[in-house]
Amino acid sequence: MATLGLIEYEDANPEVRAVYDDIMATRKIDRVNNFWKAIAHDPITLKRTWESIKQVMAPGALDALTKELIYVAVSVTNNCGYCISTHTASAQKKGMTDAMFTELMAVVGMASETNNLATGYLVEVDDQFKKPLLR
Amino acid sequence: MATLGLIEYEDANPEVRAVYDDIMATRKIDRVNNFWKAIAHDPITLKRTWESIKQVMAPGALDALTKELIYVAVSVTNNCGYCISTHTASAQKKGMTDAMFTELMAVVGMASETNNLATGYLVEVDDQFKKPLLR
Amino acid sequence: MATLGLIEYEDANPEVRAVYDDIMATRKIDRVNNFWKAIAHDPITLKRTWESIKQVMAPGALDALTKELIYVAVSVTNNCGYCISTHTASAQKKGMTDAMFTELMAVVGMASETNNLATGYLVEVDDQFKKPLLR
Amino acid sequence: MATLGLIEYEDANPEVRAVYDDIMATRKIDRVNNFWKAIAHDPITLKRTWESIKQVMAPGALDALTKELIYVAVSVTNNCGYCISTHTASAQKKGMTDAMFTELMAVVGMASETNNLATGYLVEVDDQFKKPLLR
Amino acid sequence: MATLGLIEYEDANPEVRAVYDDIMATRKIDRVNNFWKAIAHDPITLKRTWESIKQVMAPGALDALTKELIYVAVSVTNNCGYCISTHTASAQKKGMTDAMFTELMAVVGMASETNNLATGYLVEVDDQFKKPLLR
Amino acid sequence: MATLGLIEYEDANPEVRAVYDDIMATRKIDRVNNFWKAIAHDPITLKRTWESIKQVMAPGALDALTKELIYVAVSVTNNCGYCISTHTASAQKKGMTDAMFTELMAVVGMASETNNLATGYLVEVDDQFKKPLLR
Repeated sequence: MATLGLIEYEDANPEVRAVYDDIMATRKIDRVNNFWKAIAHDPITLKRTWESIKQVMAPGALDALTKELIYVAVSVTNNCGYCISTHTASAQKKGMTDAMFTELMAVVGMASETNNLATGYLVEVDDQFKKPLLR
Repeated sequence: MATLGLIEYEDANPEVRAVYDDIMATRKIDRVNNFWKAIAHDPITLKRTWESIKQVMAPGALDALTKELIYVAVSVTNNCGYCISTHTASAQKKGMTDAMFTELMAVVGMASETNNLATGYLVEVDDQFKKPLLR
Repeated sequence: MATLGLIEYEDANPEVRAVYDDIMATRKIDRVNNFWKAIAHDPITLKRTWESIKQVMAPGALDALTKELIYVAVSVTNNCGYCISTHTASAQKKGMTDAMFTELMAVVGMASETNNLATGYLVEVDDQFKKPLLR
Repeated sequence: MATLGLIEYEDANPEVRAVYDDIMATRKIDRVNNFWKAIAHDPITLKRTWESIKQVMAPGALDALTKELIYVAVSVTNNCGYCISTHTASAQKKGMTDAMFTELMAVVGMASETNNLATGYLVEVDDQFKKPLLR
Repeated sequence: MATLGLIEYEDANPEVRAVYDDIMATRKIDRVNNFWKAIAHDPITLKRTWESIKQVMAPGALDALTKELIYVAVSVTNNCGYCISTHTASAQKKGMTDAMFTELMAVVGMASETNNLATGYLVEVDDQFKKPLLR
Repeated sequence: MATLGLIEYEDANPEVRAVYDDIMATRKIDRVNNFWKAIAHDPITLKRTWESIKQVMAPGALDALTKELIYVAVSVTNNCGYCISTHTASAQKKGMTDAMFTELMAVVGMASETNNLATGYLVEVDDQFKKPLLR
């Protein structure tokens, strides 16, 4: 169970409620996930994390679904079960099909495998990649 | 330097050369990266890895660029410097702009941060996510 | 469940009991955690691990609470749920307040985020940091 | 070398310069580290990251040095060479003695060892730790 | 629960059944693990992963048990609970004694500890190790 | 460069020299690696780490070469370049052939790939593995 417990909406102070309200309005949902209720014991981190997430995950040069796929990829690599569950569901909501999910998993697994091979064989960087990607 | 050294094309046996040839033809390049030259000491792993990569990274439900972005995301999370260098360059070649790259990095960093928060606060999975994503 | 099961005090041999006794005496508790009961199948590792922990976690240049906070930080980064549970409780017992805990989590998350950014952007070390920290 | 190169102060736009100025003023230094120059290609991430770091690393329930020690611990666990270099230097500047550093390293290593043992033996959480840390 | 659910033998298409049949025949078992049933939603990944595993885990220069021990070591380091459970059982079936298991865990833990020390102290590679392992 | 620099034999105090002497005698070498010289700033950690390593890596239920292979596997997974270099060399000295090395790498990579798949698909543990491995 969450280390400090979960803060439900009705028990939240105005500062926390304001963040909950913004999460629900932005995501068009009527409740916030346990993640937010768990970190709400630290209203400053709650607010900062939500505002950062909102900024980072908004569509820009990358669309919202692509960002969600990347999020899941990182969560799998970091082995965060909670994050895999919630962000796989979010990705599905944003349009991820089963085929996209299975390809995502295949890429993640393959990348980790070749990461290990490159690391384990102590491969040195090719000269052509030893400079900034200037355009 | 690579643990067993690098096998250059001119020193490669026919089995290894066949893989090098296929890599160069598939990617429309005229040399293979050090990664392949390093693992070529094990022709079976060379062939299996290349064929798996070719299959996994081919466009499908996800396009080739999205797969490359995911690859970079995993490589950053796994902290494989070699892989970050080469796959960032590949992604650029497949159309990744600087703005896409910087957004990719922002998502990766943010995901790791919230992964840590969810893990550290021992957040339990919400009931709604405790079932398969059936359609 | 623990791979080899748990060895309770009454079923332990004298060698294992001696370690259990020392853990309970040192920590002023009347039972040892499952961790020790699980590794007790290997009395040599049990003894070595306990003696190392006792030495490393004793107050020195860093006080006992600071060491416990660092322990939790590493456990979160390594994603060891068991270790997070038990060492967060230990830290609380040694004086960690809720505010200390939430700040600890904020630092851990932030560090992982910037670790990813530094790694992903392939930032080279500044010249000023390329030498030992001589005094 | 940094993927997109480094943006020096004289080449920076006003938005980036404002962040550089605040970093230098806050930290009482006359140049910013490569980290900031590397991510400055993304002024939004630069600003957000700096403001988050400034908030998170400011003394609160934990003092500035303790936070820096935790930062180093996470960076070691995540294996970010750049971050270890710069934050070890920062910690020293904030008062970390050599003895504190060596004890920090000892705790980090010991925590990772026992993390592996708990994970590898599949130790189940003790009943007493299966509840929030309510006060 | 598995993201897309599990595909049981009776519900599997011929392509998936062929892989299940080969797994059962190769391993002399009468059911396949949940792992295979979970990834069977992606028959291409199912087939590729099984064929790769069959090739990689077959006895060669290293015997089957040694390979299984290495597999467990990696799974512990990556913190994959599912993989630790199933591959520890496989290793036992291939001859791993309790004493082998406890020594395996001790080596894994010790390696992670010294990995952290080498990384945290920023130890530079000795000149003698800066060349390929030529024979 | 190593954070606190390296302590050479001629500059070492008697306590450190005694450990260096034991390392050289045990391993039948005439110099110690940088790792030991780097952590020698903390003679207590130096002594404890050496004695633990000596105990853990000694042949027992697993022979010395198998232990070294496991050590390399963990170091690759943890991405410790220094440790990969030195322990690959040690493994070679203890009898690891090139074919053993390449198979080791193949297993490590494959394990990480399937670790990611099991984690990413949120595969639940099969009932048969939910109990201790009692004999």
